[in-house]
Amino acid sequence: HTEGGDYMMQQTMLRVKDPVKSLDFYTRILGLTLLQKIDFPSMHFTLYYLGYEDKKEVPQEVKERTAWTFSRRATIELTHNWGSEADERLLYHHGNTHPTGFGHIGIAVPDVYAACKLFEELGVTFVKKPDEGTMKGLAFIQDPDGYWIEILSPNNMVSLTSETKRPSSTQSETSDTA
Amino acid sequence: HTEGGDYMMQQTMLRVKDPVKSLDFYTRILGLTLLQKIDFPSMHFTLYYLGYEDKKEVPQEVKERTAWTFSRRATIELTHNWGSEADERLLYHHGNTHPTGFGHIGIAVPDVYAACKLFEELGVTFVKKPDEGTMKGLAFIQDPDGYWIEILSPNNMVSLTSETKRPSSTQSETSDTA
Repeated sequence: HTEGGDYMMQQTMLRVKDPVKSLDFYTRILGLTLLQKIDFPSMHFTLYYLGYEDKKEVPQEVKERTAWTFSRRATIELTHNWGSEADERLLYHHGNTHPTGFGHIGIAVPDVYAACKLFEELGVTFVKKPDEGTMKGLAFIQDPDGYWIEILSPNNMVSLTSETKRPSSTQSETSDTA
Repeated sequence: HTEGGDYMMQQTMLRVKDPVKSLDFYTRILGLTLLQKIDFPSMHFTLYYLGYEDKKEVPQEVKERTAWTFSRRATIELTHNWGSEADERLLYHHGNTHPTGFGHIGIAVPDVYAACKLFEELGVTFVKKPDEGTMKGLAFIQDPDGYWIEILSPNNMVSLTSETKRPSSTQSETSDTA
């Protein structure tokens, strides 16, 4: 096989201020499953791994569960430094204002409008609703720490990205994400 | 099925200063495949999508390829704002120094030592080599913009995370990542 053919994109790590809020958001609202929680008592932090996996497939035995978790693709790793939820000055940086870097994670859904209707009902904060701007059918929401999450539908991206080849005299909100 | 059962963790977006350097790093060194490149001429940026996919499976027809790309799990989306490579003042922020937020992406490999030996030979910058600190067999490297990439092996994580339950009088370098 090719070099890297046995490599796997396993995780994206984000620091979170309050794991109670973040776990509620990622599981109840975005529908991910908590795969594993690992405490590091001597270093005062806890890691939470979430993924779109069937709850019934999560092994019960702790070591088996850890090996299984780290062999899943595309997990979200949330890092909680103990006490951060009580630190009034602490705000994590989402990367889309100075200094920029990381931009967002992106969740593919079957129907962006249906998903966003649900998110609105659940009180989620939007950076861009699907009908705002020139990129129709594409949304950006924020998690409890303010990290941006793109909500996209694979088939809809074909027309969206084809349209960008037409000349445009106006800058759309998409330039804010770049 | 459960709510979110048809959602998918599709992408992690990082801004990159010089796509020539970044594409070389992610394809030649980390072994990802370039799945799609999308230009947004009116907004002066280009998006590159990379993933651990078989090159032979990438559709040739552009619209089919776009729909296929956005239906892949765990892609890395690199954003290039045109001209950034010539902007001497521009440095993207990796998120592990003030202001912190995003931490890293993580690549699972069969053998961390073998992978890191190759990375060393290829001149990759290390934040932590696998034998440094208390977390043996776990490494952090940096991409051309300085973003951190954890190099881990699923089975090795079992012993690493079990060991953290023993009392420790010293802070390991792992606390730097939290």
